Amino acid sequence: MEKKINAGIVGGAGYGGGEMIRLLLNHPNVNISFVHSRSNAGNPLYAVHADLLGETELTFTGELSNDVDVIFLCLGHGEAKKFVEDNDIPANINIIDLSQDFRLGETAKGREFVYGLVEMNREKIAHAKNIANPGCFATAIQLGLLPLAKAGKLQEVHTTGITGSTGAGQSLQATSHFTWRANNVSTYKVLSHQHLKEIRRSLQLLQPSFGGEINFVPVRGDFPRGIWITSYLNSDLTLEEAQQLYKDYYANHPFTHVSDKQIDLKQVVNTNKVLIQLEKVGNKLVIHSIEDNLVKGASGQAIQNMNIMYGLDETAGLKLKSIVF
Amino acid sequence: MEKKINAGIVGGAGYGGGEMIRLLLNHPNVNISFVHSRSNAGNPLYAVHADLLGETELTFTGELSNDVDVIFLCLGHGEAKKFVEDNDIPANINIIDLSQDFRLGETAKGREFVYGLVEMNREKIAHAKNIANPGCFATAIQLGLLPLAKAGKLQEVHTTGITGSTGAGQSLQATSHFTWRANNVSTYKVLSHQHLKEIRRSLQLLQPSFGGEINFVPVRGDFPRGIWITSYLNSDLTLEEAQQLYKDYYANHPFTHVSDKQIDLKQVVNTNKVLIQLEKVGNKLVIHSIEDNLVKGASGQAIQNMNIMYGLDETAGLKLKSIVF
Amino acid sequence: MEKKINAGIVGGAGYGGGEMIRLLLNHPNVNISFVHSRSNAGNPLYAVHADLLGETELTFTGELSNDVDVIFLCLGHGEAKKFVEDNDIPANINIIDLSQDFRLGETAKGREFVYGLVEMNREKIAHAKNIANPGCFATAIQLGLLPLAKAGKLQEVHTTGITGSTGAGQSLQATSHFTWRANNVSTYKVLSHQHLKEIRRSLQLLQPSFGGEINFVPVRGDFPRGIWITSYLNSDLTLEEAQQLYKDYYANHPFTHVSDKQIDLKQVVNTNKVLIQLEKVGNKLVIHSIEDNLVKGASGQAIQNMNIMYGLDETAGLKLKSIVF
Amino acid sequence: MEKKINAGIVGGAGYGGGEMIRLLLNHPNVNISFVHSRSNAGNPLYAVHADLLGETELTFTGELSNDVDVIFLCLGHGEAKKFVEDNDIPANINIIDLSQDFRLGETAKGREFVYGLVEMNREKIAHAKNIANPGCFATAIQLGLLPLAKAGKLQEVHTTGITGSTGAGQSLQATSHFTWRANNVSTYKVLSHQHLKEIRRSLQLLQPSFGGEINFVPVRGDFPRGIWITSYLNSDLTLEEAQQLYKDYYANHPFTHVSDKQIDLKQVVNTNKVLIQLEKVGNKLVIHSIEDNLVKGASGQAIQNMNIMYGLDETAGLKLKSIVF
Repeated sequence: MEKKINAGIVGGAGYGGGEMIRLLLNHPNVNISFVHSRSNAGNPLYAVHADLLGETELTFTGELSNDVDVIFLCLGHGEAKKFVEDNDIPANINIIDLSQDFRLGETAKGREFVYGLVEMNREKIAHAKNIANPGCFATAIQLGLLPLAKAGKLQEVHTTGITGSTGAGQSLQATSHFTWRANNVSTYKVLSHQHLKEIRRSLQLLQPSFGGEINFVPVRGDFPRGIWITSYLNSDLTLEEAQQLYKDYYANHPFTHVSDKQIDLKQVVNTNKVLIQLEKVGNKLVIHSIEDNLVKGASGQAIQNMNIMYGLDETAGLKLKSIVF
Repeated sequence: MEKKINAGIVGGAGYGGGEMIRLLLNHPNVNISFVHSRSNAGNPLYAVHADLLGETELTFTGELSNDVDVIFLCLGHGEAKKFVEDNDIPANINIIDLSQDFRLGETAKGREFVYGLVEMNREKIAHAKNIANPGCFATAIQLGLLPLAKAGKLQEVHTTGITGSTGAGQSLQATSHFTWRANNVSTYKVLSHQHLKEIRRSLQLLQPSFGGEINFVPVRGDFPRGIWITSYLNSDLTLEEAQQLYKDYYANHPFTHVSDKQIDLKQVVNTNKVLIQLEKVGNKLVIHSIEDNLVKGASGQAIQNMNIMYGLDETAGLKLKSIVF
Repeated sequence: MEKKINAGIVGGAGYGGGEMIRLLLNHPNVNISFVHSRSNAGNPLYAVHADLLGETELTFTGELSNDVDVIFLCLGHGEAKKFVEDNDIPANINIIDLSQDFRLGETAKGREFVYGLVEMNREKIAHAKNIANPGCFATAIQLGLLPLAKAGKLQEVHTTGITGSTGAGQSLQATSHFTWRANNVSTYKVLSHQHLKEIRRSLQLLQPSFGGEINFVPVRGDFPRGIWITSYLNSDLTLEEAQQLYKDYYANHPFTHVSDKQIDLKQVVNTNKVLIQLEKVGNKLVIHSIEDNLVKGASGQAIQNMNIMYGLDETAGLKLKSIVF
Repeated sequence: MEKKINAGIVGGAGYGGGEMIRLLLNHPNVNISFVHSRSNAGNPLYAVHADLLGETELTFTGELSNDVDVIFLCLGHGEAKKFVEDNDIPANINIIDLSQDFRLGETAKGREFVYGLVEMNREKIAHAKNIANPGCFATAIQLGLLPLAKAGKLQEVHTTGITGSTGAGQSLQATSHFTWRANNVSTYKVLSHQHLKEIRRSLQLLQPSFGGEINFVPVRGDFPRGIWITSYLNSDLTLEEAQQLYKDYYANHPFTHVSDKQIDLKQVVNTNKVLIQLEKVGNKLVIHSIEDNLVKGASGQAIQNMNIMYGLDETAGLKLKSIVF
C-alpha cells in the first residue's frame, strides 16, 4: 500500500472546512492529520459538523503541526494571507488556499501560487508548490468561456449567475434568514462582483486581445447548494461548431461535460462535476454552466488540485453520488 | 361615516407588529394612531417592513400617545406585563396583548384580561376591556378539540404540530438560518411546549372532568407561514357524529370551517381561517386543524377580538386573499 | 348603494381563473354572476380551488349568461380567440382577455382590444370596450423600461427574468414536479420568449426609433409566486436623473413604486404592486422590477383595467396584504 | 484483484432504480451487468437519470441476462412478485427485492425471502438467497423501536413520520406538483399506513408479548429527500438507561448511531446512516430516528444487504458524503 498524503485543514469549522473534511475522510490516499480551529479546539468535529457523527472521532485542534504534506487553508478572505505571513510553515509543505488572497498573483513569505483551475492550468498545477483555488462563481463562469477564449472568439459577455445560500457561509445574516430567503429572489454586487478580476485575468491569458466587458448579474437563489450560470455573446460560430469546440476542449477533463440536452442544476449538486450546455439563437451563442459551489466551486476543486499535484488519479476521492433530487 | 377606532401598536418592528400594521392599514373601521418602536423611532414603517413601501408614509414613534381607543401589544413574552406596569395607560384604553403574559389569568395594574379565543369566549370578549390573545399553536390545537371538550368527550390526546419559521420571529438563530432549515426537519420542546398550559386551561373550563394528558410534539417545518395540527384520541363517536358535532359547534363562527375533504396547509395561509378535517380509524378519532400562525394565530385573531369588542362585523378587515400557492 | 358590476369568468378552473375569483369575491363593486367551466359544471368552486372553502357557496356553471357587464376570459392561448368567435357575446358586454390572443392588435367578431398596461395606456383603457391583458413577464419587463422609452433613452437591453412555478399553470409537467423543481434552476426559451413581441410593440410606440435587441433569459425559479426582472443597458443618465425620470413617470400610478433601497421579491408577492430599483454601474443603468405574476402579472391587472374602464378607484378590490414572509 | 459481483437492475428507470445505479457505479466490488427497462431500451442511462451524464455510457436494455450473480428488483408493489413468477431466473441468482411483495413471508417459485433489516437480521441475511428489502418508513420506525422490543419494553407507540417527496416516486401527481407542495403540509393514510404490517411483524418477533397499537401519522413534507420519525411511549426506563440500551444494541452496526444532542434531518440526507436521539419527558420516552428514504430506506439498504450476503465489508460502496446543507 502506498504511503498516504498527510493533510492539515486550517479553518475547519466553516462551510469550506467542513466540506473539506467530508471529502478527505473518504479519500483513499489521504490521512487527515489535523483540523485546526482555535474556537473549537478539543471538540469533536461532529460538534460543529453534525453530519459527521458516526463518521469520525477526530477532534479540532488549536495547534498546528508541521508533520503534514499539505495544508488546506479554509479561511476568510484576507485571513489566509495573514496566516501564511504569521506562521512559519516549512517550505516543503504545500499550501492549497481556498480564499481569494492569492488568485491574482499575490505572494507571501516568498510563496508563489498557481491559479488552480485545472481545466486551464493542469500542467502548471502538476508542478505547483502552492495553489490558489478559484472562486465559486469564477469557476463556473470561466468553464463556460475558456474554450471560446482559447479559440480567440471571446467578445463582450452577458452573464447571469444564481447561487445557493451556502455561498454566503454560516454566519447569520438578514439575507440568509430562512423566513426572508425562502421563496425570495434578490441580487447583489450587480456588474461589480469581485470574482470578475480573476475571471478576466484567466481569459486574457488565453486571449490576450480580449478587452470586452463581462457583465455579471449575481442573484441570491432560494436553495442551499449550487451555482447556475447563463452567459451569452455575439458569435459567428454555428451551434455545431461551438459544441465541437467545447467537446474538444474538455475531452480530457473528467469532471467537465458538454450536454446536448437542456441541463438543470440538480444534475451536479453534491458532485465535483460541471455540465455545460450550448444554444445558438440568432447571432448569439448562449452558454449554460453549472456546478456545486462547495464542491467544484471550493473544496472538491481543492482536492482535484491536490490529486494532480501528487500524481494521483484526478478523480480520487471525488466520485460522488449526486443528490439529484 | 362612523368614527374610526384609533389604534396604537406597541412593538411594531417585529413580525407580529408588522402583520398588525398590514392588517390595520386595510381595516375599514380603524385608524392607526401610532406605531411604537424605540429603536426605529423616526424611520418610515417601510424601512423595517419593506413590503409596506407604497402602502403608507407612517413612521415609527418612540413616544406613546393616550389619544387612542385600543393598544395592541406586540412585545416579547415577559415584556408585555412589564410594559403595562411601567406605563400609565388610562383605564379607558383597551389593551389587546399578543404575548403569553396574561393568558393564564395574570393581571397588571388591576387590569384583567379575557382569553381571546373567539370560538370559545365570544360573549366575554364582547364585554372585555382587555384581551390576552391566544398563542399560535394553542389556537390551532384548541380549535381542533373544543367541540369534543364541550361535549365532554375529551380523553388523552396525541398531537403533532408543524410550524413555519415565522413562529420563531425575526431574530437570527441557527435554527432559522436558511442553509440549515431549508429541506430540514427537527423538533423542539417535545411533550413540554409552554402552550400546553393555556390549552389545558381552556379545555378544562369546557370539560372540568378532563384530566388526560395532551401529548404534543412540536416540529420545525421548512416553510415560513402556517401551522399544521394532527390530533387523535380514543372516541366512541362515529365519523358522522363527530362531523356533526364540529359543524354545529362552528356553525356561527365565520372563520372556522369543517372540510369533508382532505385539507392541506396552503388553503389557509395568509388568511384568518381555520380549517378542520376529521377521520375515524378504528376507535380513534383524528382531527386535523390548520391556520396561518401570524394571522389567526396572532394578529388576525387580535383584530377579530377587537371587532367583537367594538361591535363591528367579526370579519371586518379580515377578508383576506389566501396565497394558496 | 351603487349598482354592482356583474362579472362572468370563463375558464374559472385554472390558476388565472382561481385568482380572478379570489379577487372579485372581495371586490366592493363587483358581483360574480357566473364562473364557467365545462368540466366542473355543478361543482362548488371550492371543489377545485380548495382555499375557497368558507368563502363562497358558488358553483361552476357550464352555461354562459348574457346578463353580465363584463366577461373575464381566463383561457389558454388560442382558446380565447376561438371562444369569442364561437359565441355570440352581445356587443355591450366588455371582454377582458388574459391570454395573449389579442395583445398584438388581433381582432375577433369585429372586437378591437386595447393593450391593458395601465401605466402606459390608462386613457385608452378608460374608453376601451375590450382589453388584452398583458403577459406576466411582459408586464414586469415593460414597467422596468417604459420611462426610458418615453424619454427616448432606450438602447439594446439585457434582461434576466426569474419566474415562480405558477407561471406554468396547474398541468402536471416534469418541470413542475416537486422532486425535480425544489432547489433546482433551469432556463427555457432563452432569447426567444414569446412575450418579446408585445414588449417590443409597446416600447416602439413610446420610442419609435428603438431598434435595439431585447435579450431576455427566462429562468425557472424554485418558488411558486412572483417574477424578478433585472435589465441593464448603456445609459448616459446619472443614477439621480434616472431615479427622477422613473419617479416622475410613476408619480400618478398607485401600484408602481421606485425604491431607493435594494428590493427583494417577497415585498410584492400576493399584491398588485410593482417595485422598481435602479443602480448605475459604470456606464450601465441597471433596472430591477418585481411583481406577483398571478396578480399584477394577470388577474390583478385585469381588475385594475376593469376599475379604470368603469370609472372606479383604480385600487378598488386590490388593497391586498402581502405574504411578505 | 477479487472477482467483482455482477449485478442486474430491473426497473432501472424509476427513483429506486436510479439510486441503485448511482450507488453501484461507485461500488468497488460490483459490476453493473445490465439495467433493465422495457420502455427505455437502447437509451443511455443518462437519458433518464440526467445526473449520470459523464458517469457512465451504459444503456438500458430490454433483455434480461442470466449471467449475473444478483438481481435488484426496483419495481412497483405487485410487479415484483409477478416478475419472479413470469421469468425463469436460475436458482443460483440471488434476488434483492425493493418492493413490499415479499416482506411478510410471501414466496414465489419456491423462493423464500429474508427480511433485510440488517440491524435485526444480520445473521440470517448473511446466509440468505433472497432479500425482501424493508420499506422506507418501516426502516426508520423499526430502528427507533428495535432495542426496546428486544428488551421487552415495548408498549403502545405514538409515531409521527414526515417524508420527502421522493417517497412518492416520479409519477406526476397533484400532491407532488411543485406549486401545490412547496411550503405545504398534508397527511395521508393516517393510522393505516401499509408499512405497519412489516413493522408489527418484526417487533413481535423480538417481543412476542407485544400487542399494543402502533399509531402512525404519515406527513407529506415539502422537501425531496429524507424521513423524520418521532415516536413516544410510556416507559419506566430513565434516559440514561434507554440511551445505554440503544447504544449497546447498535454498537456493532456501522450505520446506526445514537446522538446525545438534538438531531436534524439533514445530518443523514444522501447517506446510508440512521441517527437516533432519545428524550425522557415525565414517564414518556421519546425516540427520534432519521434516514434518507432513498438510501437507507431503499437502495442503500439493498446494497448493505448484498454486502453482507457476499461477505464484503458492510460499508462497501456506502461511504457517502452527506449533502448536509
